[in-house]
Formats: sequence, structure tokens, C-alpha cells
Amino acid sequence: MHDTLEHLTQLLLDSYARIGGINYLDGKNLPSKRMIAEITLDLLRLLFPGYFDERVVHSAELRGETEARLESVRRRLENQIDKSLEYAPPPGVQTEESRPLAATLAREFLQQLPELRDLLATDVEAAYGGDPAALSPEEVMVAYPCVEAIAVQRLAHVLYERQVGLIPRIMTEWAHGRTGIDLHPGARIGSHFFIDHGTGTVVGETSRLGDHVRLYQGVGLVARSLSGGHSLRGQRRHPTLENRVTVYAGATIMGGDTIVGAGSTIGANVFLTQSVPPHSLVLNENVRIKVLAKPTHSPGPDYQI
Amino acid sequence: MHDTLEHLTQLLLDSYARIGGINYLDGKNLPSKRMIAEITLDLLRLLFPGYFDERVVHSAELRGETEARLESVRRRLENQIDKSLEYAPPPGVQTEESRPLAATLAREFLQQLPELRDLLATDVEAAYGGDPAALSPEEVMVAYPCVEAIAVQRLAHVLYERQVGLIPRIMTEWAHGRTGIDLHPGARIGSHFFIDHGTGTVVGETSRLGDHVRLYQGVGLVARSLSGGHSLRGQRRHPTLENRVTVYAGATIMGGDTIVGAGSTIGANVFLTQSVPPHSLVLNENVRIKVLAKPTHSPGPDYQI
Amino acid sequence: MHDTLEHLTQLLLDSYARIGGINYLDGKNLPSKRMIAEITLDLLRLLFPGYFDERVVHSAELRGETEARLESVRRRLENQIDKSLEYAPPPGVQTEESRPLAATLAREFLQQLPELRDLLATDVEAAYGGDPAALSPEEVMVAYPCVEAIAVQRLAHVLYERQVGLIPRIMTEWAHGRTGIDLHPGARIGSHFFIDHGTGTVVGETSRLGDHVRLYQGVGLVARSLSGGHSLRGQRRHPTLENRVTVYAGATIMGGDTIVGAGSTIGANVFLTQSVPPHSLVLNENVRIKVLAKPTHSPGPDYQI
Repeated sequence: MHDTLEHLTQLLLDSYARIGGINYLDGKNLPSKRMIAEITLDLLRLLFPGYFDERVVHSAELRGETEARLESVRRRLENQIDKSLEYAPPPGVQTEESRPLAATLAREFLQQLPELRDLLATDVEAAYGGDPAALSPEEVMVAYPCVEAIAVQRLAHVLYERQVGLIPRIMTEWAHGRTGIDLHPGARIGSHFFIDHGTGTVVGETSRLGDHVRLYQGVGLVARSLSGGHSLRGQRRHPTLENRVTVYAGATIMGGDTIVGAGSTIGANVFLTQSVPPHSLVLNENVRIKVLAKPTHSPGPDYQI
Repeated sequence: MHDTLEHLTQLLLDSYARIGGINYLDGKNLPSKRMIAEITLDLLRLLFPGYFDERVVHSAELRGETEARLESVRRRLENQIDKSLEYAPPPGVQTEESRPLAATLAREFLQQLPELRDLLATDVEAAYGGDPAALSPEEVMVAYPCVEAIAVQRLAHVLYERQVGLIPRIMTEWAHGRTGIDLHPGARIGSHFFIDHGTGTVVGETSRLGDHVRLYQGVGLVARSLSGGHSLRGQRRHPTLENRVTVYAGATIMGGDTIVGAGSTIGANVFLTQSVPPHSLVLNENVRIKVLAKPTHSPGPDYQI
Repeated sequence: MHDTLEHLTQLLLDSYARIGGINYLDGKNLPSKRMIAEITLDLLRLLFPGYFDERVVHSAELRGETEARLESVRRRLENQIDKSLEYAPPPGVQTEESRPLAATLAREFLQQLPELRDLLATDVEAAYGGDPAALSPEEVMVAYPCVEAIAVQRLAHVLYERQVGLIPRIMTEWAHGRTGIDLHPGARIGSHFFIDHGTGTVVGETSRLGDHVRLYQGVGLVARSLSGGHSLRGQRRHPTLENRVTVYAGATIMGGDTIVGAGSTIGANVFLTQSVPPHSLVLNENVRIKVLAKPTHSPGPDYQI
């Protein structure tokens, strides 16, 4: 048995040595998924005090708590950004400059929080106003996964714009795992953004969304699958949705030159690969309905495809 | 640096003071998401002893364990319901009446558990009977996410019917996060309910489902997105599925006046906004198939959309 | 109150005694979901050292760590397989043979790890090469849920092929809960497999996938819902995708005799229930676009379905 174990260990070590790309040893120290998850949760607590905490926050202690949490996040985020800069230094940045740059980026990032709160307040307003099932803004806060997914995207977008590598994607992927909503940090998203239910909804890297956009579950704003590969990087690959566009469940909108005009509605399960003018309604046609003349009496459905 | 921190803290505090609706301080103490998650997990253990526990439960200790768990859940649930009643008092209920009412509601809720077990047994039976891949009822219990999602919906529905606020939605949203299945506590659902795979499946608040309904992943029973907003509250907004209806993956059925007749089958990715009679088969038509005359020899697919 | 508690406990105990199938007491000890989750996470650490660990792994300590982890996984997996064999003994295996058989199965399983790493390296390559948004293989490793979902399926498939019950499904369901990607352990999947986004994607038990297959979110490779039930077990019920097939978001491909020929592309939201020859492009037709003559000036979309 022990021989087997030693032999198997050797086979695995050989494999680690032979195949790069799926292991990361002695290399630059990547940002840590677990640390970034903890930082992101603390950022949500700073954005929405009293909602992501486990206890009620009282006004008297709010200043002290906020200051301590800000400082703790700043310090940990600086560390993670430093790892990211070491791993993928921005053009023209020398190794010895990375620590001060990380400190600046972390500080500037946190200065965006009040502005992000203004924007997120419009999202909560859109969710509350847009769903008759929502009984109060508090219900939106405690029971709508889009609040968390959108907040994390807006946070990650700030880092993405500053060209910090890996961390923004780890942040949004953390939210994707928790909510089923996959919003790329690169997407530019206007105010009053509402995603209802949201499981399976995807907003790709170069998407642009106006204000008052409303998406349902399973909606994809996606790229064509082209063989161009990495030569396409940096080009627009995902669609533009102008103001007041609603996209129903399961619709897929594809391509960097596809523009959905303001006020349009895209029906469920539509696959749209071309632009439509403002005020459009897009639907699939030709649903066929067939009724059985002689119903069966099986315990299951009468008709089997 | 410290100046910056103080300044940033002040900016955030100003923001907390300015924007209500997304923070909740010194207000009525909302039910806690974490506490409700723990209570819900204990309720699942009471419903399915031996499946959500980490150790085998022996008959000899079952009475003692069950009694202790029931009492613990009762006490914690009463506390959470009390918070909910304080936050949103039902019409005609005075503040001093809320604690006794919470106690009554918690007790009456737990008395439903045996009846819920009868109903859930029909759901497990439907899953086992309906999927050739299921090798045993035990496999259904340990590896089908619908069991947990449906159980939590049926629990939450009892509280929803008694007009307890927030808690039912926090319960089903907890299950949504774990399973990808989003069942609103308001939906009325018959026996033998089976959801296969289930990621992205949505059943809206005013849906009504008969017995032996079977849904696949990505199915939505949803409301029209109307500008009526909260004036629509309480009205039927979601469809009715009569007995023995099967809905394949990704189909969306919309609207409070849409009735899918008994025994009907709705094909994958159909968007249905009208009623269909019993024994209907509804499919999308006009799938177009085009075959390339000269295949490419690229490493990817031959055709790019 | 105490009377009520005793009475309610009795009602639940009566229910536990009356309804089998949804509780499991004093029976054979089922494999534990929690233990299998821990084992699976350790297997991911063995496959991808440095990615699922919380700290950097240095080469100097790699041999010791790998050997210790292998031995720990072997021991725990043997225990779980033993429970599985007790619960569902393979034909011709006596009770006293189950422990040695479990030991053999666990050892042989671990010997597959180097080979699985070769295969998984092709999957990471396909993801990196196939998505212009991926900036590095490291980004694929830390931020693409398909890596984890596919790795767990390939691990579970080895146990499935050796007819180990329950454990493979518990493993893939664990990954399904974390990623939204539901890959049955029975599916036979070629090299260079890429699933982008992946929430809601389902690959059924008897599916067969060639090399260089690419699926997007919400794609289902599913079975017809037939009343044959368990008589269908073991038969092909899910489709075949030949080499270099791409399936866009939300498409559903159904049936054991459905073959999608090499190099084909299936458009978003197609519902395909028949075979198509190699080099096919399959799209839904007849999307209808209607433009309002007089736009409204509501805050929402102009058109409501």
C-alpha cells in the first residue's frame, strides 16, 4: 500500500511538472479567492449597513464601525491589488512602483463608495417599483438577489476601469456563484437597473446598458463565438441596450454591432442578432398548438414529444 | 492617510443619512437572514430525518432529538415572526398583541409538519417515478435539488397564507441561492410536483399548479411586466397549470389569465401568453436547418452566426 | 405548551413510521453528503495544486503535501465507497467482500488522477482559446465555473463507470449547487470541452460528446419525458454531439437517437428533437419585429406584451 502511495505521488508530481497552465507553484502569488470573497462581503456591508451584518447597527456605533471596516478593507484590498499588479503589471509600471500604486488604487476605489450608493439606490428603486410582488424596499434588500449581483458588478467595474487584473472577475464570479447572475465587470450599466429572478442571466464584457433597463432570468447579452479568439480582445463584442429596454426570460441578444433601440421590448426566448429601432417589440412567431382528439388517461401528460 | 479615512467615513455617514431605503439603522429590527437560514435547515431535518443530518439517526434517540429540535425551532421561529409582526403589523393587530400572536403562529405552523410530509412524499414519488436516471428514492433524496426547493416552498407557503411578512421570501430565496430554483411562497402547488434539474426555474407569486405537474430547468411561470406596479398587487398575475401538465426546459408561460389545460405538454423554449385547452401540445415551429456545402477545417465549428 | 410539544412530537414520529421513502433511519448507512463534498474539494486540490488551496504551495513541500492528501482522500473515499456498496451491492458481491472491493476501487480511482489532469488541461486550453474575455489561463482557473464543474464530472464519471452508487451523483450535484452546471456522471465527454457561463446547462446521463464541443449557459442535452419510466434505464435517452459542435445559450437537444453532426452550430433557444448532418446550422426562424408608430413616454418600455 505504501509503495502504491509513493508511486502515485510520483506520478502526480511528474504530471504537475509536465503540464503547466493548470497549476501555479512558486510563481507570482495570485490574488486569493477567499480573501476577495471576504473583502467583497465587507464592501457590501459598507454599502448597505444593517443588511449584510448579522446584528442591528445602531447610529451611535456607526461611525466607529464604519471607520474600522473601511480601514480593514483598505489594507486587505491593497494587498490583493499588489498581488494582481505583480502578476500582471500594467504597461510602464516597474516592480518597485507596484506597492505605492496598489495603495493609491485601493484608496481611490473606496472614495467611490458614496457615489456607488447613489447609483445603487436607483437600482433598489427600480426593483421595488417594477415588481408588484415586492411589498417594501426592505423586502427587495433581503430577498432580491439582483441587489447583491448588481452591487458587486458596480464595485468590480471601478477596478476593471483602472485595469486591475483578476480581482474584478473573481468578485463577479463570487456573486455569480451566490446568485446565478453573471455580470462581467467590464459592462457599462446605467441607472435604475433591475434583474428579476436572474438565474442564468449573463451580461458580457463589452455590453452597454442605458438607464431603466430591465432583464429577466436567463437573458444573455453575449458575443458571437468567432474563431478570431484573442485578436478580438478590446473590440465591442456584446450588444448595446438603450434606455428603457425590457428583455424577457431566456432571450439572447448577440453581437457588438447589435443595438436595441430605446423603449423596446424583447419577448421571451428570442434570439436577436441584429439591431432594432427604438420602440420595437420583438417576438418569436408561429407557436403551433395541437389538441389531441382522444385524450389518454395516463398519469402523465397526454402527449409525448 | 488618517485624514483620508476620517473624511471618507464622513462621506459615507452623510450618504447613509441622505439615502434611505438601502440601509436600515435604529429601525424596527428586521428578521435575520442568517437565523432564518438556520431555522429552515432545522425544519428540513424535521421533515426528512437522517437526510439533512450529519450523522445517522437511530430510532432509540429519535423521540428525544425530535422533541428537542421542535422546541428549539419553535422558540427561534417565534422570535423571528415577532420581528416580522413588529416590522409589518397585520391590520388590526396592536403592538402589545404581537408577541402572543407570534407564539400562536409558530405553534400552528409546526403542527402542519406531518401534513406537509404527506405532500412531500408525493413529490419524491413523482421524482423517482418520473426520471429513469433515478436509481432509488434515496438517490432522489440526496441528489435532486427539487426536493429541498419544493419542501422550503411548501413550508414558506404556510407562513405566507398566515400573512407573515418577509420570512417566507427569505426562506425561498435561501433555497433559490442553493438550488437555482425560485419558487415564490405565494404559489399554490398540488401534489406530485416534480422539477427536474431546475436551475433557472421560476414559479411566480400567484401561480396555481394542479397535481402531477412536471417542470424542467429554466421554465418560467411569470407575470407580464406592466406599468401598473403596485396597483396590481393581490391580483392574479401568473398562470394556472391544470393537472398533469409537463413544461419542457426554458418555456415561459405568462399572465394571470393564461390557463394551460389538463394533460398538456409545452415544448422547450415556447413563449406562451394565451390559454390552451386540455390535451394540447404547444411547440415552436419553423426551425431552419441549413447544411454547408463545403465544410471548413477550422478547429472550431464550421459555421459562425 | 409542553403537552403540545409532546403531542406534536408523537404526530411526527407516527408520520416517520408511516411514510417511508423520505426518511432513513437505522437503515444501511448512506454515504454522507458532507464527507463527499470534503473529499471532492480535496480531489480538486490534487488536480489543481495552488488553485483550491488557501495558501501558496511551494515546490519544496509539494511532495509531502501531495502524499498526505492522497492518503487522506484514499482512506475517506474507501469508507464512503464501502457505505455505497453496503447500500447497493453490485451483482454477485457478498457483504464480506465489500470492504476489500471498496479499498480496490478507491485505489484504482486515485490512479486515474494523472490521466484526468491531461484531459482537464485540454479543457482549460479550450476555455482560454475560446473566450476573448479570458486574459490568461490563470484567469480561467480562478474565474470560470466550468473548470470545477467539468473536473468534478470527469472524477465522478470514473466512479460511475465502476458502478459505484450514489457517490458520483452526490459529487456532481455538489458542483451543480456551486456552479449552476448540471453534468450527469454518466455522460461520456471528449477532450477540449468548454462551457461558457454555464448557469442552467444540463448534460444528461447517456449523452455522448465528441472533442472540441462548446456549450453556453442554459443548454440542455435531455431525454424525452416518457411514461416508460424505469424500463428505459440503461437505454440511450440523451443526444450525441459529434466533434466541434457549438450550442448557443438556451438551446435544448432531446432524445437518444438525436445526433448532431460534426462541426454543426445550434442557435440560441432552438428546440431540436431530430438528427442533423455534419456542418449544419440550426436556427429558429420568423422572429417578428414590430415598431410602434407613436412611442409612449412612460418610464418603462413602450410596449407591453
